[in-house]
Amino acid sequence: MDVSVVVLAAGQGSRMKSSQPKVLHCLAGQPLAAHVVKVARQFTSDISLVIGHGADQVRQFFAEQPLKFCVQSEQLGTGHAVSQALPLLPKEGAVLILYGDVPLTRAETLQRLIEQVSDTSMGLLTVKLDDPSGYGRIVRDAAGRVTSIVEHKDASTEQLTINEINSGIIAVPAWALHEWLPTLSNQNAQGEYYLTDLIEIAVSKGVAVNTVHPTDAEETLGVNNRVQLAQLERWHQQQIATELMTQGVTLMDPSRIDVRGTLSAGQDCLIDVNCVFEGTVTLADNVSIGPNCVLRNATIGAGSVIEANTLIDGASVGASAQVGPFARLRPGTQLADNTKVGNFVETKKAIIGVGSKVNHLSYIGDTVIGSGSNIGAGTISCNYDGVNKYATTIGNNAFVGSNSTLVAPVTISDGAFVGAGSVITKTAPADQLTIGRARQITVAKWQKPVKK
Amino acid sequence: MDVSVVVLAAGQGSRMKSSQPKVLHCLAGQPLAAHVVKVARQFTSDISLVIGHGADQVRQFFAEQPLKFCVQSEQLGTGHAVSQALPLLPKEGAVLILYGDVPLTRAETLQRLIEQVSDTSMGLLTVKLDDPSGYGRIVRDAAGRVTSIVEHKDASTEQLTINEINSGIIAVPAWALHEWLPTLSNQNAQGEYYLTDLIEIAVSKGVAVNTVHPTDAEETLGVNNRVQLAQLERWHQQQIATELMTQGVTLMDPSRIDVRGTLSAGQDCLIDVNCVFEGTVTLADNVSIGPNCVLRNATIGAGSVIEANTLIDGASVGASAQVGPFARLRPGTQLADNTKVGNFVETKKAIIGVGSKVNHLSYIGDTVIGSGSNIGAGTISCNYDGVNKYATTIGNNAFVGSNSTLVAPVTISDGAFVGAGSVITKTAPADQLTIGRARQITVAKWQKPVKK
Amino acid sequence: MDVSVVVLAAGQGSRMKSSQPKVLHCLAGQPLAAHVVKVARQFTSDISLVIGHGADQVRQFFAEQPLKFCVQSEQLGTGHAVSQALPLLPKEGAVLILYGDVPLTRAETLQRLIEQVSDTSMGLLTVKLDDPSGYGRIVRDAAGRVTSIVEHKDASTEQLTINEINSGIIAVPAWALHEWLPTLSNQNAQGEYYLTDLIEIAVSKGVAVNTVHPTDAEETLGVNNRVQLAQLERWHQQQIATELMTQGVTLMDPSRIDVRGTLSAGQDCLIDVNCVFEGTVTLADNVSIGPNCVLRNATIGAGSVIEANTLIDGASVGASAQVGPFARLRPGTQLADNTKVGNFVETKKAIIGVGSKVNHLSYIGDTVIGSGSNIGAGTISCNYDGVNKYATTIGNNAFVGSNSTLVAPVTISDGAFVGAGSVITKTAPADQLTIGRARQITVAKWQKPVKK
Repeated sequence: MDVSVVVLAAGQGSRMKSSQPKVLHCLAGQPLAAHVVKVARQFTSDISLVIGHGADQVRQFFAEQPLKFCVQSEQLGTGHAVSQALPLLPKEGAVLILYGDVPLTRAETLQRLIEQVSDTSMGLLTVKLDDPSGYGRIVRDAAGRVTSIVEHKDASTEQLTINEINSGIIAVPAWALHEWLPTLSNQNAQGEYYLTDLIEIAVSKGVAVNTVHPTDAEETLGVNNRVQLAQLERWHQQQIATELMTQGVTLMDPSRIDVRGTLSAGQDCLIDVNCVFEGTVTLADNVSIGPNCVLRNATIGAGSVIEANTLIDGASVGASAQVGPFARLRPGTQLADNTKVGNFVETKKAIIGVGSKVNHLSYIGDTVIGSGSNIGAGTISCNYDGVNKYATTIGNNAFVGSNSTLVAPVTISDGAFVGAGSVITKTAPADQLTIGRARQITVAKWQKPVKK
Repeated sequence: MDVSVVVLAAGQGSRMKSSQPKVLHCLAGQPLAAHVVKVARQFTSDISLVIGHGADQVRQFFAEQPLKFCVQSEQLGTGHAVSQALPLLPKEGAVLILYGDVPLTRAETLQRLIEQVSDTSMGLLTVKLDDPSGYGRIVRDAAGRVTSIVEHKDASTEQLTINEINSGIIAVPAWALHEWLPTLSNQNAQGEYYLTDLIEIAVSKGVAVNTVHPTDAEETLGVNNRVQLAQLERWHQQQIATELMTQGVTLMDPSRIDVRGTLSAGQDCLIDVNCVFEGTVTLADNVSIGPNCVLRNATIGAGSVIEANTLIDGASVGASAQVGPFARLRPGTQLADNTKVGNFVETKKAIIGVGSKVNHLSYIGDTVIGSGSNIGAGTISCNYDGVNKYATTIGNNAFVGSNSTLVAPVTISDGAFVGAGSVITKTAPADQLTIGRARQITVAKWQKPVKK
Repeated sequence: MDVSVVVLAAGQGSRMKSSQPKVLHCLAGQPLAAHVVKVARQFTSDISLVIGHGADQVRQFFAEQPLKFCVQSEQLGTGHAVSQALPLLPKEGAVLILYGDVPLTRAETLQRLIEQVSDTSMGLLTVKLDDPSGYGRIVRDAAGRVTSIVEHKDASTEQLTINEINSGIIAVPAWALHEWLPTLSNQNAQGEYYLTDLIEIAVSKGVAVNTVHPTDAEETLGVNNRVQLAQLERWHQQQIATELMTQGVTLMDPSRIDVRGTLSAGQDCLIDVNCVFEGTVTLADNVSIGPNCVLRNATIGAGSVIEANTLIDGASVGASAQVGPFARLRPGTQLADNTKVGNFVETKKAIIGVGSKVNHLSYIGDTVIGSGSNIGAGTISCNYDGVNKYATTIGNNAFVGSNSTLVAPVTISDGAFVGAGSVITKTAPADQLTIGRARQITVAKWQKPVKK
């Protein structure tokens, strides 16, 4: 059966206390609504997003994605919201209703829900909570069939003891949605049109309401404030951590890792405490990541060691490399196998060949370094004159002495040896010693500084 | 009704295993007793501190504050402790008894407690615990009136099932304290004078004992060892985190933030994992703080981004600035709007103008930089000759090449361009190129170093 | 009674998804099996390790330790595993059976277990679990005597309600092991020889099975996958944290400290959040460790302050020193009392005398510094020419100006003053000013760079 999805994403979320619409607040690095759209895409490309508050911002975020937008200009309830999408929906197949602020429903759960839809049945996602207060309760008849949903405030004492609650997520035959939605009434205390009322209509029409439960209650939780956002963030991170460990990654503390994107890891990787992964990060086998590292859009080769307090962004590291501690690899950095980039070193657009080393206190930008070269402590590639950027080229097996200043554009040839403390402004020839520094003198009749 | 407060702060706290008196151990950056005195000040300026162990250290900590001290030279029980303060207390009004090692009682709770005091009634703060063992139980009559407090060891089997316990915090009419305290007896197993005995005296005198409960049991918890200190610290931090989120701050992990002082934040600030805030820190709207930052006594302007692993102490940052990663702003640093201070950069008494940048590996101390200037990687302001400190002045739109050494006192004029690797010891004139570096030479007949 | 220990360490641990044998996975910095062997050594030097999967790796790890190895080439059950060790075991005394993947059983618990062994009795370690499912249940007769262990899948409905379970850890008279083990049968569903069957044999032979409980259930937990490994790691770290606090160390967050080795601390030390300790670390009294520090094999003197984000490895720090933030002390660093090593400073084989300071952005390697010297920001000791390493010697009360380059082998004499930005290649004489830098010039007719 073909599936269409409607995602309700028009709410203001005033309890977020934010200038952003609620559904754009991020969980694991992606807006809440993006999580919902992503899971919806597993079932269909026909996704309608009902937007309202912050509509332009939401539209802009999803600008690159094939999505239908429909604007709910007044917030008159969930039933009203879905009605806005009705003209966009087919007359056949199943329609799945999701919420832009309920980000973590699993595809497996939704798959089971969709499977409940037939010409004579619909699906309702319910969940049993230890503390159901505040939620709509699922009322069933003696045969266990759902007969209605009763809101907390309308529930009888007996109904209040029901701990199965309505998640709001439903899957409905498209024909039914077209037929029933226009009949919803707003004759209630709030003056709103409730999607929940579809359940009673279904029952009255002889359409069976089949329930499905999620694996975890968190799949049905919505975000109304930043406390709830943080709770879902931590639950989600815990799931990711467990999955990583199950796949064979050692985590020194599963409650102190944050993955905001996709982290793939080979066999026997170890991730120490307090690391953050953003974007797409790929670790080969036997990679070790020290404490307090942040890796964003990075690829790390087999057996490489990333030491404590290292930041890697938009960079690739070969095999058996050693990076950090206190290193920062910026976008465009490519480290070959067996390279070393050490403490207090920043690289940017730096291509560093096999076995080369930049071990201490250096800035290497817009620079290509061959293999087997050693860049001394305190070396700066001066790639910028305040207006333009220039390139530095360093050959194979070169040695750049400490505290050297390489004024780009400039070339250090293969096997060149640059004396410590030199300022290099033109090509250092191959296999020769080049220096640029003053003679050391001791000053006669010098007076020690005295306290003023 | 006027209120006086007595804070008992004489205990040794031997289980702290410390050379410091217990009440000076810090929670959220402030001594335990300071939390108690702070909440007491919301009700009165008449605060008596009963001190004993480490009396001098306690006196010294509070030296700047208007407080009455009375020394309890022997520890003969809580009743004896309060007796020491009796001569300092007025004969009328209410007296609130607090404990220097019970740091987190809320003002709202104490307000309700004080309200129980009248000529014919007193207030007793009690709390229901899941596990009341060890605590004194609150015994009530059939009408629910408190009749006595029975200590755990003296309790009958039936009384042991009572889970309402005595916090020790009471509010008493001043006249009663003056009348009853001298009548306390130390005829008990410990040979001590117990404040608890006041309850039975009150009941016998027909003074009603009205109970008040705190919102959270933690408000009544005392600190007897460092395990309990850590438990209260974490609970307190959790409260602060929840409050921040409720106000509209996104916390990536509410269990990994430490606020030891006051953190104010505008709308839509984001604080990443593992940050520490000390002293008074103010964030304007849309400030983002990366992981592992420590901010102490700092002000950050709207839209500024503080990147990972940045330390800021005694500094202000303007709007739309970018600081870090791995930056350290020390006291006296003032960054204007749109400034950038990058990785491995330390600033101290550095005033940096609009749009200026110090992006890499620099030390900028005792320096004023105008607007639009660029300070190259590896630049050092030499502000110290081993004896005295000197100032560096850099104008607007200046460019200081990488690895430059600015020997203070020295001036880099507006629009000056300092060549990379220069040592600058006198004024670099405006809009001109100044360099101080040796010519580059290649040495003839050089022999490569060989392994010794 | 003499004790022998058999440690079963032959399992594959396929759920670890690892190329390493399970028992070599680390908890608190040591392989699981090393924890077991370590506790076993408290009772005996007669320890047999039954190895199988990854036997060579296990042998290699324990190569330096006096241990008997016996190879179980096929995994035919725990009874079969112990049988492999039988030829190595004495005929008298007690035999304690431990598991290489159950790392955290306390010595006190095992002591009590061993004490159950006599000619007519054996010891069985059992534990009560809230959720015993999956475990073998301890069946007792009306008198409370153990009669058998029934596996979960074989248990009756009534037996399933038993929450006392078998840990597998037993202590048996040696004679009985020799007599009973050969009689075990593999006529069961798995076709394996079960050590558990010894219990029924003991009962049938009139040997009493005396049970002992551990203080914590975690003492009996095994590691089958990395989720369980992380759970035990965190429980163990929690125990260590509690012990440190009890001894008088303040931990800002007991759930954010990792001790992977031995951490000893004097009185009134404070450890801030997110620190990691590896190897043997010793803190004297009143040491303060800032957030995010990693200390490995380090000794810190009384009153010293280690500031945030500092890494110390194989180094000693004297009293009243200040190190960090963002410092990295590498192996062979020895800081005397009152020294300061500041931000973005790396030291390696650096011996630094009383009161000397290296405050900013420096690399100090293979260097000896006397007392009272000041090393300016950006100073680099050039200890390497690409092939050999050389030493730098700096005397007492010397001053090395910022951005200096010290080309080793080189000496800075007592009281020498090196001008900022100098390259020093030969001895700087005592008490004189030595400089090595070019004259500053301003270039006529210079053209500002323009955008290309």
